[in-house]
Amino acid sequence: MAQHQRQSSRNIDNTGFGTNSNTEGGRLVNADGSINLRKTGMPIWTRTSVYHTLLRMKRGHFFLSIMVFYTAVNIFFASVYFLVGVENLSGVDHSRSTFDEVMAAFFFSSQTLTTVGYGHVAPTGLLTNIIASTESLLGILAFAVVTGLIYGRFSRPKAYIRFSDDMLISPYKSGKALMLRMATYKNNHLTDAEAQLTIAMHVNENGKMITRFYPLPLEISRLNSLALSWTIVHPITEESPLYQLSKEDMVAARIEVMVYIKAFDDHFSNTVQQRTSYTHHQLVYGAKFQMMYERSETGGYTVLELDKINAHEPAHLSETVPVP
Amino acid sequence: MAQHQRQSSRNIDNTGFGTNSNTEGGRLVNADGSINLRKTGMPIWTRTSVYHTLLRMKRGHFFLSIMVFYTAVNIFFASVYFLVGVENLSGVDHSRSTFDEVMAAFFFSSQTLTTVGYGHVAPTGLLTNIIASTESLLGILAFAVVTGLIYGRFSRPKAYIRFSDDMLISPYKSGKALMLRMATYKNNHLTDAEAQLTIAMHVNENGKMITRFYPLPLEISRLNSLALSWTIVHPITEESPLYQLSKEDMVAARIEVMVYIKAFDDHFSNTVQQRTSYTHHQLVYGAKFQMMYERSETGGYTVLELDKINAHEPAHLSETVPVP
Amino acid sequence: MAQHQRQSSRNIDNTGFGTNSNTEGGRLVNADGSINLRKTGMPIWTRTSVYHTLLRMKRGHFFLSIMVFYTAVNIFFASVYFLVGVENLSGVDHSRSTFDEVMAAFFFSSQTLTTVGYGHVAPTGLLTNIIASTESLLGILAFAVVTGLIYGRFSRPKAYIRFSDDMLISPYKSGKALMLRMATYKNNHLTDAEAQLTIAMHVNENGKMITRFYPLPLEISRLNSLALSWTIVHPITEESPLYQLSKEDMVAARIEVMVYIKAFDDHFSNTVQQRTSYTHHQLVYGAKFQMMYERSETGGYTVLELDKINAHEPAHLSETVPVP
Amino acid sequence: MAQHQRQSSRNIDNTGFGTNSNTEGGRLVNADGSINLRKTGMPIWTRTSVYHTLLRMKRGHFFLSIMVFYTAVNIFFASVYFLVGVENLSGVDHSRSTFDEVMAAFFFSSQTLTTVGYGHVAPTGLLTNIIASTESLLGILAFAVVTGLIYGRFSRPKAYIRFSDDMLISPYKSGKALMLRMATYKNNHLTDAEAQLTIAMHVNENGKMITRFYPLPLEISRLNSLALSWTIVHPITEESPLYQLSKEDMVAARIEVMVYIKAFDDHFSNTVQQRTSYTHHQLVYGAKFQMMYERSETGGYTVLELDKINAHEPAHLSETVPVP
Repeated sequence: MAQHQRQSSRNIDNTGFGTNSNTEGGRLVNADGSINLRKTGMPIWTRTSVYHTLLRMKRGHFFLSIMVFYTAVNIFFASVYFLVGVENLSGVDHSRSTFDEVMAAFFFSSQTLTTVGYGHVAPTGLLTNIIASTESLLGILAFAVVTGLIYGRFSRPKAYIRFSDDMLISPYKSGKALMLRMATYKNNHLTDAEAQLTIAMHVNENGKMITRFYPLPLEISRLNSLALSWTIVHPITEESPLYQLSKEDMVAARIEVMVYIKAFDDHFSNTVQQRTSYTHHQLVYGAKFQMMYERSETGGYTVLELDKINAHEPAHLSETVPVP
Repeated sequence: MAQHQRQSSRNIDNTGFGTNSNTEGGRLVNADGSINLRKTGMPIWTRTSVYHTLLRMKRGHFFLSIMVFYTAVNIFFASVYFLVGVENLSGVDHSRSTFDEVMAAFFFSSQTLTTVGYGHVAPTGLLTNIIASTESLLGILAFAVVTGLIYGRFSRPKAYIRFSDDMLISPYKSGKALMLRMATYKNNHLTDAEAQLTIAMHVNENGKMITRFYPLPLEISRLNSLALSWTIVHPITEESPLYQLSKEDMVAARIEVMVYIKAFDDHFSNTVQQRTSYTHHQLVYGAKFQMMYERSETGGYTVLELDKINAHEPAHLSETVPVP
Repeated sequence: MAQHQRQSSRNIDNTGFGTNSNTEGGRLVNADGSINLRKTGMPIWTRTSVYHTLLRMKRGHFFLSIMVFYTAVNIFFASVYFLVGVENLSGVDHSRSTFDEVMAAFFFSSQTLTTVGYGHVAPTGLLTNIIASTESLLGILAFAVVTGLIYGRFSRPKAYIRFSDDMLISPYKSGKALMLRMATYKNNHLTDAEAQLTIAMHVNENGKMITRFYPLPLEISRLNSLALSWTIVHPITEESPLYQLSKEDMVAARIEVMVYIKAFDDHFSNTVQQRTSYTHHQLVYGAKFQMMYERSETGGYTVLELDKINAHEPAHLSETVPVP
Repeated sequence: MAQHQRQSSRNIDNTGFGTNSNTEGGRLVNADGSINLRKTGMPIWTRTSVYHTLLRMKRGHFFLSIMVFYTAVNIFFASVYFLVGVENLSGVDHSRSTFDEVMAAFFFSSQTLTTVGYGHVAPTGLLTNIIASTESLLGILAFAVVTGLIYGRFSRPKAYIRFSDDMLISPYKSGKALMLRMATYKNNHLTDAEAQLTIAMHVNENGKMITRFYPLPLEISRLNSLALSWTIVHPITEESPLYQLSKEDMVAARIEVMVYIKAFDDHFSNTVQQRTSYTHHQLVYGAKFQMMYERSETGGYTVLELDKINAHEPAHLSETVPVP
């Protein structure tokens, strides 16, 4: 019967995911919004955008990469200066050990690469001068790249949205609704926010397991301002693919709710977006969200309590069965 | 009766603000367009976007922050050089006082950080060389960050719109209209400008005070070019939530008119926007704006007088009561 | 009679220009697309966006401004170093003339500002060290600003459209049409191009001269690709405000055709736009454009001859008068 | 008869390409998406956007250009220092050969331009100081330009889409369809992808060969997510301009299918696009694409095999002729 109802809602085939359940992996979209997919058949350097990778990298890893790159380049040039001969570097004491000579070459390299150029060590021979001249140009270019990367990293439009950990099946009017909650957690201000929910369900069709996709219509799908929290509500009406499904049905169908938020960042005049996905493991059946904002005690402003984003309490669902 | 009329205009619930008057603070939107809201429940470093903060900071504060950061980093590295021993810095006179040594370390640090590297003071020991090498890299990275921030600051799309201080209830055709005025005050040129007005009213519904939101339909809501000033006009017709409200009614309802302007910056090919809000304290009942542009004396161009943006004069309102 | 016809086309009042012919200047939009307007009533530093100004400045002026700024800052710091005393700069020969001392201070300043820091002249005293440390930071910040400005200048979306010098009244089907021509003249590629024409006419209404604005409907107002030239055609039908107007009528109405082109730059994925305006002085009555592109001799590609953008030849217009 | 059918689909004239087959060259759009067009009649420096050129240049060429520019500027300044006299450079041994003097001037120039400024060679005379001061400013400005270019290069929105080499006429439902395939090959994620196909056909109209353009309606023209591959399908129905055309007819009409993809880059919040074109040489009549993605062996994710993008196998087409 649930099967019958589900067919009353039109499935869609323009999600970009294939419908063949057998030829695909598990989860479609990861919780961080990335696609659960690997690409093969082309060498890694062709199928990797270095810029995308460096922009997505965690901050610590990014600065560590720069440190490693800086040291490696200095080791390379130190070797070259050493091979050419440190007697071509004025100011280096030749009576000292090889280690001291290598160190002198290394630090001369770092002073050239950063263009700090104290000059107590300076190139004298023709070859050493050519290498130093090349290294300082390289330093300037590398710096240009780093400046671009750093700007690219922090100017990248981000939505800074926190989603509730769980999605709830909550009481709604005389029936039920699927609910999840979100709020911006930084001092950014999003306007003209739009939400799209798509559900993937594994269904048995003519004895074959296939994946079907359905859009989930929302009570309110567009908000003028994302100032407070936003509880996204999909009412489970007769048109819903979840209509009359029990918790067990939903788990059996291995439902995955893909969430897509698009908004306008007031401050940067930029479109930002964020994506997440809820699997049946994050489904709480029979619960409702608790209020997460209130008037400040002095009354002058509103307080949004971000730690309550996932706060919910059990709620009774009326399992009304409509007469056909 | 006013109550009756107000209900004929449809209130909206997608403003992103809650409707419960008790659980919220005073003003919703501040005059500068920011939301009157505080967030709690997450540590300040998680809920603050450093980049947003540095971009929104006033120019003076921004450059002061850089000065303070520069000095602090130099003090830190000066301490390190001093602890390692200034005898590892060639060119520093060791017979002088500790103060002179500390100063030498400080200025050596600043010369390294900025990569100016005169070299009359230069690192000699291994440890000092490593520190100096690290500091010059740090200087280059910090500079990259500053370059990005400065570019981010002045390339940020801004509308440069000045609004009239007051909103007026003016005579309009045979009735009344709510009017406010705006103009761009810089040498930027906005096109395809769009205005949206939303009013928040505190109303008594079933004995409970709640906040209701209504869109205010405008005579003209879209302008091809924002060359001259723009008087935004909301005619108070039967459909208006302000229909037949007296000044006292409006003050009692603590009306707040939220203004949202979106336009296209001709020069940057960027969408820009600005937001403001008028409370009932800024309401002038029975007044009209004075003309603020005129032909230049030589006749070759138009003159827009920005100091007249709020210029208005008293005007009689005909309190016509339509027959039901 | 012409008056009668003109009223059959609906005038518009959302151009952003006032309709009162008396209170406005001459031309509304200049040929370069800027608005013919001056703003007063606020101090010039408040109503000028320095960033907009530096971005719009001609390339020569921009680099000259940088040179002047660089020299001025060096003169300022040279004075400071000189006042503090050049004896605090090691490497300066004190037995020489005051001019030599001033020059030494000047060049020390420039070496500090650019962070080149040779070091043959270096700061020794505390005060001089503090000043030099500040100057090198200033140099780095100024450089960051210049980097941002230069990037802002050449990354600014530009349409690079060349318009024909004249607008023509040409034969079109069995009647007439207003035509003007445009083409991109650089190696950029615009797609999804859109044209909007608005005409301003000075008309006598109830004995008063006022300005009326009418949109001019186009034969084709949207082009998938702006690869070749585009002749923009406004057919002069009964609905046209130009219907049955003679050349003299058009001149008497001091017509001004404002042109607005919006397109998508394929390469930058950016929206670009350009604006221009034709006055009645640029009207050629009875002419048609000559073809400006042809097959290359070897046949492998198309040749677009940009020097023919305004090429036109006289053409007979059939002054057919429709029966009412 | 084919002629008859073709006329049942409406041709379009807003492609931006002329319809006159005689006055145009061969292919309209190249495989890399650029327009097959040359512009004349304006000097090359006017019709070339240096910024566009430097951004489109291959990476190797770009860095080679910088190297050449760097060397050329150093040669220029070396000549100037040499002409002014190397005796104005302290630290240069005047007893050595002219070659050594020229080299000293060259390396002093490079140390000034990159602001590394070791200082073992330093300017002493007035003129040399002025030149060095100018060169270091020039170096800073050049560096600013390079930083901007490098950022512009790698932040430029790119779609990274790989198209199948061939377009196929494949079996589709009970008839045929034109199919081509695409996939993103990098670690970027495109959403809200949109495809537009336009076909150019050379047809004999009243004894004259002219080019006609038709839009090709697609089975699905918009995809929520471009996660996997996308097979773009134009069903050859009665409305299709290809209806009942044999392979020979298509070749005779020298069909060219222009493909335009527009999507939203999830990561940069940027619109990206890519363009290509298929000529009749790339037409494979009677074939179908092979599956290019499958479940990973461990079952946790989906694998997209990029090397199979063009994999197709022969397929029988049913040449059903509908009854008129």
